[in-house]
Amino acid sequence: MIESFRIGIAGLGTVGASVVRLLQTHGPDIARRAGRAVEIVSVAAKDRTRDRGVDVSGYEWTTPEAMGADSTLDAVVELIGGEAGPAAALVEDSLKAGRCVVTANKALLAHHGLDLARLAENSGAALCYEGAVAGGIPIIRTIRQGLAGNEIRSVYGILNGTCNYILTQMRETGRAFDDILAEAQIRGYAEADPSFDIDGIDAAHKLTLLAALAFGMKPDFTQVRTQGIRRLTATDIVLAGELGYRIKLLGVARRLGAGVVQSVEPCLVPAGSPLGAVEGVYNAVFVEGDFVGKSVSIGRGAGAGPTASAVVSDIIDLAAGNRYPAFGISAESLKTAQRADAREIINSFYLRLNVLDRPGVLADVSAILRDHNVSIETLLQRGRDPEQPVPLVLTTHDVRQADMAGACGKISALGSVVEPPCLMRIETL
Amino acid sequence: MIESFRIGIAGLGTVGASVVRLLQTHGPDIARRAGRAVEIVSVAAKDRTRDRGVDVSGYEWTTPEAMGADSTLDAVVELIGGEAGPAAALVEDSLKAGRCVVTANKALLAHHGLDLARLAENSGAALCYEGAVAGGIPIIRTIRQGLAGNEIRSVYGILNGTCNYILTQMRETGRAFDDILAEAQIRGYAEADPSFDIDGIDAAHKLTLLAALAFGMKPDFTQVRTQGIRRLTATDIVLAGELGYRIKLLGVARRLGAGVVQSVEPCLVPAGSPLGAVEGVYNAVFVEGDFVGKSVSIGRGAGAGPTASAVVSDIIDLAAGNRYPAFGISAESLKTAQRADAREIINSFYLRLNVLDRPGVLADVSAILRDHNVSIETLLQRGRDPEQPVPLVLTTHDVRQADMAGACGKISALGSVVEPPCLMRIETL
Repeated sequence: MIESFRIGIAGLGTVGASVVRLLQTHGPDIARRAGRAVEIVSVAAKDRTRDRGVDVSGYEWTTPEAMGADSTLDAVVELIGGEAGPAAALVEDSLKAGRCVVTANKALLAHHGLDLARLAENSGAALCYEGAVAGGIPIIRTIRQGLAGNEIRSVYGILNGTCNYILTQMRETGRAFDDILAEAQIRGYAEADPSFDIDGIDAAHKLTLLAALAFGMKPDFTQVRTQGIRRLTATDIVLAGELGYRIKLLGVARRLGAGVVQSVEPCLVPAGSPLGAVEGVYNAVFVEGDFVGKSVSIGRGAGAGPTASAVVSDIIDLAAGNRYPAFGISAESLKTAQRADAREIINSFYLRLNVLDRPGVLADVSAILRDHNVSIETLLQRGRDPEQPVPLVLTTHDVRQADMAGACGKISALGSVVEPPCLMRIETL
Repeated sequence: MIESFRIGIAGLGTVGASVVRLLQTHGPDIARRAGRAVEIVSVAAKDRTRDRGVDVSGYEWTTPEAMGADSTLDAVVELIGGEAGPAAALVEDSLKAGRCVVTANKALLAHHGLDLARLAENSGAALCYEGAVAGGIPIIRTIRQGLAGNEIRSVYGILNGTCNYILTQMRETGRAFDDILAEAQIRGYAEADPSFDIDGIDAAHKLTLLAALAFGMKPDFTQVRTQGIRRLTATDIVLAGELGYRIKLLGVARRLGAGVVQSVEPCLVPAGSPLGAVEGVYNAVFVEGDFVGKSVSIGRGAGAGPTASAVVSDIIDLAAGNRYPAFGISAESLKTAQRADAREIINSFYLRLNVLDRPGVLADVSAILRDHNVSIETLLQRGRDPEQPVPLVLTTHDVRQADMAGACGKISALGSVVEPPCLMRIETL
């Protein structure tokens, strides 16, 4: 009889409670898969009295600090969140002491992943974080193991379910961003402070981890150029639709020359493409490798159930005795991310201007585009309202990002252009 | 310095040669991921002189028999194929001797997987087969590890790239099955003897393995009700399209009561659904679990590159020291598959009849359907040609399979029905 695998769970929010529920529900099956029982020894959370819908009375109630010092545990499950504070201390203390850590904390890893990977290696502990990226998609394992034979060329996708839900709702209802956001908050799909999600930071955290794994690089959040979806208007969604596209917040990391470009930005994707079809709270991650070709995984992005599924998959792997370096290779082998020059990327673009409806505006805009080697593919002007602002929308053929940015700067300076242009990449990846 | 991980590769067809090429191309990266070098020690193939596009002159040239007895190897990579003969002997000999085996041989595993899993367990060796199912999708790892916390409710998808290519071509060109098959053979997408693919046997082999993993069952190929795509006509493809569907060869394994239903059959899926959008040589596998919800993976189904990617992922995992039971849990814990009664499944259906164009036929058909509790959703009759055969197509609302089969039997017996009806499930899974 092998001894049980003893864990402590810190953080009993919706994910933590769901992890407890999963372990309670599927105990015997999990024991068969891990080759030994997984035993919850202790839990830590702020409020001891709150009803979480699961019975935690059988577990020792402790603090994150005490859990970090508990040498009787085989692994610690950190679900407190946040890139500093008790979560960081618990993870550090545990790894230093040689105890394995399972976490869903993408902020902590995106900012301190390298240091934590080193701590883990020095003490022989493992640091697992399947739950940190796209809970419903085992994408960490897919890149780290399933596609380990490949040189990865790019990894990209829809990494934030809240944004995708908002964009889907905006498209389906025609309503404005603020309106849909408020509703999403009421329904629990968006946080009270939604900025991490809607400003693209959450997606950038996740992309940092995926890029580190895919390219064998030190995770470096500062390399991700990040833009959220706050500025998107219902008009953009409608116009993109008329042109055959959907707007998605895409995280993209790809090799370019000797470097890697990493960005999180709203982009247009063809409505009929696999990415365009991913709606609501679903996430999708594409990986392109030299031998495997393109591979796609789609699943729920967040939520208690999918994240608990991911967290428990890590617990089972550890209990079964399997160990992997946090970022696929030893921390000392990770290369320093080399930022490629995004201006050299060739892309087509969507450009929406708000212009005064007067003669000559189109001539001015098209002359600037011509002077920057930008060739127009389609152009739509909606509405007629002399001397009043009307939307002017165009898509381009392939063009260097630097040329497009140059043209855009000049166009913004035109007197007839009444607000900053809305410029988005069209991705047909 | 850790010693290299010594392997032998038996079978140097397109996949074997691609595995050699991958290991040669990415040697240093693979060593970083595995924590040690992977060294090809020996190879075995029939024809020593053939040009395979890779340099194998540095490896010992041996026979499968000798490779099976080589105690200096850490693992054997079996890419010969076939459920008996030298492939089976090599795998058995290696596992008996405690040497790990990596194989892409689905026929061998679907028929003898349980015995081989036992052999592996008894000797402490590992049996890995990521390359046996959907090379471009790391679906074995996804089910065995990534979704290990879930009770799986169903696993299903497009498991044969050759059939999907043929069906896609039939739809896009309107040409007949035989015609497209002949072309696929010339282009190398179908074997000279295509029956394993087009009769659904290859897909049934793969489904057997997926179902065993997903449900913790002994793999049992005989439980899969299998029907291929030979009988599909261009008419069916066109009519399904008019009704908003695409025809796909689906492998489906799902829990029903205390048992599991396993089938490989052509089915209709909505054209706009994720499954409907999977075209050409791509495969797609859906897994539905109680905590994770629905998760989908899409990638190339076969071909040298994707399969080599999968095979090498297993080699790296073994070299890194990770071990998993072949079917996720120990062989003795695997339950005997309990065949659920498919007749109790509720489904909607597509039914195409070839009927003589004469008064009263529709009345006869609809009376039979009514008597079997089958409610018609849509009905199309194409062409007018008095007393000549014309297609009559209908789709039903949800109905018990047993009722539908009963109705179908009665309808076939009508004098005005001139050939066996074509009946397919409509899957909106």
